Amino acid sequence: MSHLSEADKTYLSNSIREIEDFPKPGIKFKDITTLLGDAKAFHLLMDHLVERYENREIDYIAGIESRGFIFGSALAARLRTRFVPIRKPGKLPYTTISEKYSLKYGVDAVSIHIDAFTGAGKAKPKVLLIDDLIATGGTATAAVNLINKAGAECIEACFVINLTFLQGDLDIKKTTSVYSVLEVF
Amino acid sequence: MSHLSEADKTYLSNSIREIEDFPKPGIKFKDITTLLGDAKAFHLLMDHLVERYENREIDYIAGIESRGFIFGSALAARLRTRFVPIRKPGKLPYTTISEKYSLKYGVDAVSIHIDAFTGAGKAKPKVLLIDDLIATGGTATAAVNLINKAGAECIEACFVINLTFLQGDLDIKKTTSVYSVLEVF
Repeated sequence: MSHLSEADKTYLSNSIREIEDFPKPGIKFKDITTLLGDAKAFHLLMDHLVERYENREIDYIAGIESRGFIFGSALAARLRTRFVPIRKPGKLPYTTISEKYSLKYGVDAVSIHIDAFTGAGKAKPKVLLIDDLIATGGTATAAVNLINKAGAECIEACFVINLTFLQGDLDIKKTTSVYSVLEVF
Repeated sequence: MSHLSEADKTYLSNSIREIEDFPKPGIKFKDITTLLGDAKAFHLLMDHLVERYENREIDYIAGIESRGFIFGSALAARLRTRFVPIRKPGKLPYTTISEKYSLKYGVDAVSIHIDAFTGAGKAKPKVLLIDDLIATGGTATAAVNLINKAGAECIEACFVINLTFLQGDLDIKKTTSVYSVLEVF
């Protein structure tokens, strides 16, 4: 298991910009575009994830629309593995299965192609889920359930940033391992 | 300059699924999720792009939301360069500049952070634009203009698939080089 040094974590953390009141008043948004625009920060992160996952025999990396696409596909490129997009309903062109989750006001859902995990030719392919950030965890929990529903095994859910004070990873941890590169208390 | 063999192109081409009548009746949608779910196809494509671009001294790869994020970030990971997302208006959290373009009925726009290309510390950083597909070219042409407006130089616009019968690359070619991995006549 690889560990980032405290200096590396500080560098990564400082590469993320905070935007006040986006998308709503009162929210401090973590802007990861400044991390992606800093080659040292971006590839420090990717090298760390490659080290962590290269010997885990991962068949698929699944990324949640749309910032999860960026980190997930980057890691799939480095590990030479497959990439599966998890999207909002209506965006994927072929037959999908979906999983609903509750929001503060209302419900939302995530979708995946019904045959997303058939290409590896295995009964239970191993999937790593990636997203940029976990807050209350509704989307990520639904995504983990969706991966398992689609016939694969979600071996870990990985986040660049975990707003741990929201405890959004509690439901995922009942069934799946969770790894967060940076924790915000 | 690297070339894919005809056999490689056929393999790649066959890895893309066609979906009839998505998102609208009469449209044959090119579904690239089957390419991403085929490790041979995905990394054949990535190896080809790495070979093509590794000696071009690219400072940034810009990807168009959201399938362009997948291919663009994957290439940035392989080339260890920076990644910049080009998004629909309202999605990026910091100050943006936008570029409008005409649709058949109405207008749309793409946005970029105003400081997207400042991290390389160069007067005119070199940017490669990537998207999965060019059809009528409205989005891609606006994205090229946006990159130049933001103070960088778009050295090439790269597409996995070009529906060449729509001639969507004509406007881009007036100012910028265009490269398409697969051409559909």
